[in-house]
Amino acid sequence: MARYDFASDNVVGAMPEVMAALADANAGAVTGYGGDPVTARAADLVRQALDADCEVRFTASGTAANAFALATLAHPHEAVICHEHSHIATDEAGAPGFFSAGVGLIPLAGAAGRIDPRALAAVLAQPDVSYRQAPAVLSLTNATEFGAVYTEAELASLAGPATAAGLGLHLDGARLSNAVAAGFPLAAVKRLGIDVAVLGGTKAGSTPSEAVAFFDKGLARRLDARLKHAGQLVSKARFLAAPWIGMLETGAWTARAAHANAMARRLAGLMPFPLAHPVEANGVFVTMDDAALERLRVAGWFVYRFLDGSARFMCSWATTAEQVDELGAALKAIA
Amino acid sequence: MARYDFASDNVVGAMPEVMAALADANAGAVTGYGGDPVTARAADLVRQALDADCEVRFTASGTAANAFALATLAHPHEAVICHEHSHIATDEAGAPGFFSAGVGLIPLAGAAGRIDPRALAAVLAQPDVSYRQAPAVLSLTNATEFGAVYTEAELASLAGPATAAGLGLHLDGARLSNAVAAGFPLAAVKRLGIDVAVLGGTKAGSTPSEAVAFFDKGLARRLDARLKHAGQLVSKARFLAAPWIGMLETGAWTARAAHANAMARRLAGLMPFPLAHPVEANGVFVTMDDAALERLRVAGWFVYRFLDGSARFMCSWATTAEQVDELGAALKAIA
Amino acid sequence: MARYDFASDNVVGAMPEVMAALADANAGAVTGYGGDPVTARAADLVRQALDADCEVRFTASGTAANAFALATLAHPHEAVICHEHSHIATDEAGAPGFFSAGVGLIPLAGAAGRIDPRALAAVLAQPDVSYRQAPAVLSLTNATEFGAVYTEAELASLAGPATAAGLGLHLDGARLSNAVAAGFPLAAVKRLGIDVAVLGGTKAGSTPSEAVAFFDKGLARRLDARLKHAGQLVSKARFLAAPWIGMLETGAWTARAAHANAMARRLAGLMPFPLAHPVEANGVFVTMDDAALERLRVAGWFVYRFLDGSARFMCSWATTAEQVDELGAALKAIA
Amino acid sequence: MARYDFASDNVVGAMPEVMAALADANAGAVTGYGGDPVTARAADLVRQALDADCEVRFTASGTAANAFALATLAHPHEAVICHEHSHIATDEAGAPGFFSAGVGLIPLAGAAGRIDPRALAAVLAQPDVSYRQAPAVLSLTNATEFGAVYTEAELASLAGPATAAGLGLHLDGARLSNAVAAGFPLAAVKRLGIDVAVLGGTKAGSTPSEAVAFFDKGLARRLDARLKHAGQLVSKARFLAAPWIGMLETGAWTARAAHANAMARRLAGLMPFPLAHPVEANGVFVTMDDAALERLRVAGWFVYRFLDGSARFMCSWATTAEQVDELGAALKAIA
Repeated sequence: MARYDFASDNVVGAMPEVMAALADANAGAVTGYGGDPVTARAADLVRQALDADCEVRFTASGTAANAFALATLAHPHEAVICHEHSHIATDEAGAPGFFSAGVGLIPLAGAAGRIDPRALAAVLAQPDVSYRQAPAVLSLTNATEFGAVYTEAELASLAGPATAAGLGLHLDGARLSNAVAAGFPLAAVKRLGIDVAVLGGTKAGSTPSEAVAFFDKGLARRLDARLKHAGQLVSKARFLAAPWIGMLETGAWTARAAHANAMARRLAGLMPFPLAHPVEANGVFVTMDDAALERLRVAGWFVYRFLDGSARFMCSWATTAEQVDELGAALKAIA
Repeated sequence: MARYDFASDNVVGAMPEVMAALADANAGAVTGYGGDPVTARAADLVRQALDADCEVRFTASGTAANAFALATLAHPHEAVICHEHSHIATDEAGAPGFFSAGVGLIPLAGAAGRIDPRALAAVLAQPDVSYRQAPAVLSLTNATEFGAVYTEAELASLAGPATAAGLGLHLDGARLSNAVAAGFPLAAVKRLGIDVAVLGGTKAGSTPSEAVAFFDKGLARRLDARLKHAGQLVSKARFLAAPWIGMLETGAWTARAAHANAMARRLAGLMPFPLAHPVEANGVFVTMDDAALERLRVAGWFVYRFLDGSARFMCSWATTAEQVDELGAALKAIA
Repeated sequence: MARYDFASDNVVGAMPEVMAALADANAGAVTGYGGDPVTARAADLVRQALDADCEVRFTASGTAANAFALATLAHPHEAVICHEHSHIATDEAGAPGFFSAGVGLIPLAGAAGRIDPRALAAVLAQPDVSYRQAPAVLSLTNATEFGAVYTEAELASLAGPATAAGLGLHLDGARLSNAVAAGFPLAAVKRLGIDVAVLGGTKAGSTPSEAVAFFDKGLARRLDARLKHAGQLVSKARFLAAPWIGMLETGAWTARAAHANAMARRLAGLMPFPLAHPVEANGVFVTMDDAALERLRVAGWFVYRFLDGSARFMCSWATTAEQVDELGAALKAIA
Repeated sequence: MARYDFASDNVVGAMPEVMAALADANAGAVTGYGGDPVTARAADLVRQALDADCEVRFTASGTAANAFALATLAHPHEAVICHEHSHIATDEAGAPGFFSAGVGLIPLAGAAGRIDPRALAAVLAQPDVSYRQAPAVLSLTNATEFGAVYTEAELASLAGPATAAGLGLHLDGARLSNAVAAGFPLAAVKRLGIDVAVLGGTKAGSTPSEAVAFFDKGLARRLDARLKHAGQLVSKARFLAAPWIGMLETGAWTARAAHANAMARRLAGLMPFPLAHPVEANGVFVTMDDAALERLRVAGWFVYRFLDGSARFMCSWATTAEQVDELGAALKAIA
């Protein structure tokens, strides 16, 4: 059977801190739907990490978290500006449209998953017309789908014009821990004026859980009913919240992301194929033809050809130096 | 702080078999989104329990499971026949409408949460007209919201006319384990011609997970994309599936439901207030005025006044005889 | 073939003023989608009639007008309070749910189609909970579905508490012309704080056209795109607007409604069956058993048994005294 | 004020045959919602024109007609293959997503608005994956947005592979009359296996009305309720149907389209700017820089720069040779 170790950062299980927190949270009879002490404590930890007084909720799916967040920011007849290779545009089977009755996407180009500011400016300069879904939200992803990490200044150069044009701001932080480990300050989320941020738990090493932070509390009207209506509120809410206690209280969310990033750098150092993008977080993207990819698969390693045609190797909290070296040797053999 | 022990069957944590299965499932790197061996094994166990070759998926939310199931059975301009006090009608914040662009509900009366067959017949006799959402699905709940358990014959007397009228059949089995423990044969689900059945994990004693069985495979076209689109497909799918291995392989799903049912009977035996409904599963519903309910709360026990005005006491896998006796004494004191 | 003269006020064609206005509007090449001079003039006339600086749009369907209006006032996870026999609750096939991804309805009782203020107070007193769609809008209908006409004071006694509770206000004015002809001041719409009002054209005597007035311009963000997105913006918009020039400029909208109301009073005077509701607008509702209704149909006259079990006779701009007398004679014969 | 004569084929009013039919249809009291004799006769004429036993309905908006049709053919988690410059992709403000809870679009390239068969083949060859909306419908437009007319054989080369892959077929025939006038046989619609066809009335010279023909009657379950639910069923349905009597019974639908096509050819003959696309129907698309377009506007003629950057001149049933010659002279003057 093929080895999936580097196929994605979601192929591995949960880190020990998460499993321990789940076991801790399991005791006792508490009220449901997020009114319990475990959820309260996890939400406090998220607020503390973000240094912000925001509403925090937890969902089992990152796709749901993003789509739900966008639905609070855009009307159905409006659109979301995003990178053409963003997760919401390419990997969520149209979930933003489902959660908001047909909200549109305006995909923009840009190197390594960063949105090109000129492309954004061009869209913002377009007149509102009745036959087109005008942008209401700018969706940003950090780290990007191609393993790049925006600096705060880079994000500000996109967020600023968007905010000036009246748009809301969404942050897809499925790999925000990797960005933070790479130097992006978590407090920048508030400074940038993000309205809704999704903090990734799953890819960071949790059981299924994403934290959604609503900085604009005006969006949070009847938030729990909205989550319930959208099938995103569970009764035993503590099991979605507890992982965040495990990850944030111990610092593991960032520390293990730093490890994943380091493993990616190690892999990059061993890589015989040319890098397609700079290695700034936990992914290594290389130029590799079909024959080489096939040889790698025959050698037992499964990885995906990604959106831009590059081959993608993802490291996670669980990746070991031995795995990296083993893969490095396999790559060398088939290069 | 108030004791929530009897407030619901979802106020407690997960049974040991589930926690063990989660720990077991945590190892290794596997493909995501349900393509993994843990999910395959759990789905096989569900099929085996139902004695049916159905498609099986797992969701974190029972509300989502029900609403998603209904969306596969009804067009937006159609409606779902349900009990007026069913979960989909009273406790899901309109989720069926969200998942299917406005599908309607046709709530019917009936004792103890069972739909009155005459009420069903009256609805089925109505002509199709353009200004009304005609029924396309009959939704059944077993055990009912009031702790009653339909026999197979009782369900057949509802399912038969509905099927004859061309309707699909949905089973909300949030407490199906309690029904099974009370004598309802699981194989009856297939015999009744149910199209989509939701098997409750959460209330049975799992971390958040419900199993959805699609008996009509024609409904399952591109099922995973449909789940993804609706924010119901998670990458680390094994964590939603593993609990079912823990519950089904060991027999705990039924055995612990039998315990919960027994605790309800024990509580009924101690109950100084008149029963509002027969105690057939894990709930005890009693007639209790506001003053008495307030005294109980002052005494430290929180329970809900329920949809029909009765006070509801729910037992779970975790309820102990000591807890029941303690509550019994408290009830006696305030009666 | 059965005579439909009294089956509804939408069974007849358009009044001469409307047909003339359509012919007038037909000339020339103008820009589409409502940017044309005909639409501008019609919107001005609506604003003038309402004595309000509101945004005005025209739709072909009253159901669409209501559902669209409600979608601007309620989030999908919220609900609309309405009379249990209101058009949105009983005659629109769930359109409010479609236009707003599952918005709910909270139907209230009340005599002759008027909402009982005590029923409203009871709903407004309910706490917000996550599992229920809380009310975000109060929908009022004047004249009511049972031919009653709310006074401004009566509406204020409903609108006041709703507004105080933070709800928006929707007016279904499908028969607003009949209410105005019966003494309801059109300027009261603004005074009552209505957020979105639908002014009925079709039942007043137009070709298919309803005027929708958005008093709260904050709701009108990208209104034309929202209409387009919802399939409610037509290119040759002048044909939906022109009827309003014909009806408002001439005063025919009110004058012909006064005629319809007078015909209803005439019919009430001839009616051998007991009135089920006071005759305040253009409808006559009577208590009539199945055998009598069948005799009437055999005699050639088709009318509907209505929501509350009464038999409904509607008069329109086109109803003549001769028709009324003819029907009166038929009724006398079968009574 | 600018002259809009050539800005679109929807800037003019309705042809005399339509106005006469409306006047004819205005008499009498008939049942509503499409049960009337006028609607029945119009539907028969559409069936006769298509030589097919299909269900026929009429909507006021072409956008609604297309979006509604697509919603009957695709699930929300699926997608519609269309030309990148098709009306549904560029001019409907996301209506397909609204009518079907987020259905996606897969835009393909191709010269003059025709879909490139190789692009279609590439999409059909893609594997179904859970994270992407797979195609369920192929949407075809004839005449195309760029004034080209597909032959039956050309359409068959697209429809064949799509049908073989299990896709449904939608025809946007907003300008089908122009295609027919150019030689496309109307009976080909059935031969090609189209499931739902929209026949354009508005651009052909009607007041707002499109005919929607459902060839696959399985899609038509509770069709009127579905239309009502979506805000597309009007009570005085005869006013949407009557134009089709005027257009089809007299042959004006095709005859006046032939005139529009001829006017386009006349304009092409006078055109001093290079044609961007062949002139096969009623549009003339030319390469014209911003300065020239501005000079034309200064000279009093408003036309649009179109999706591919060309300048678009549309002729209609109402275009006169004098207008064409006048425009030709203006173009010559500014060229």
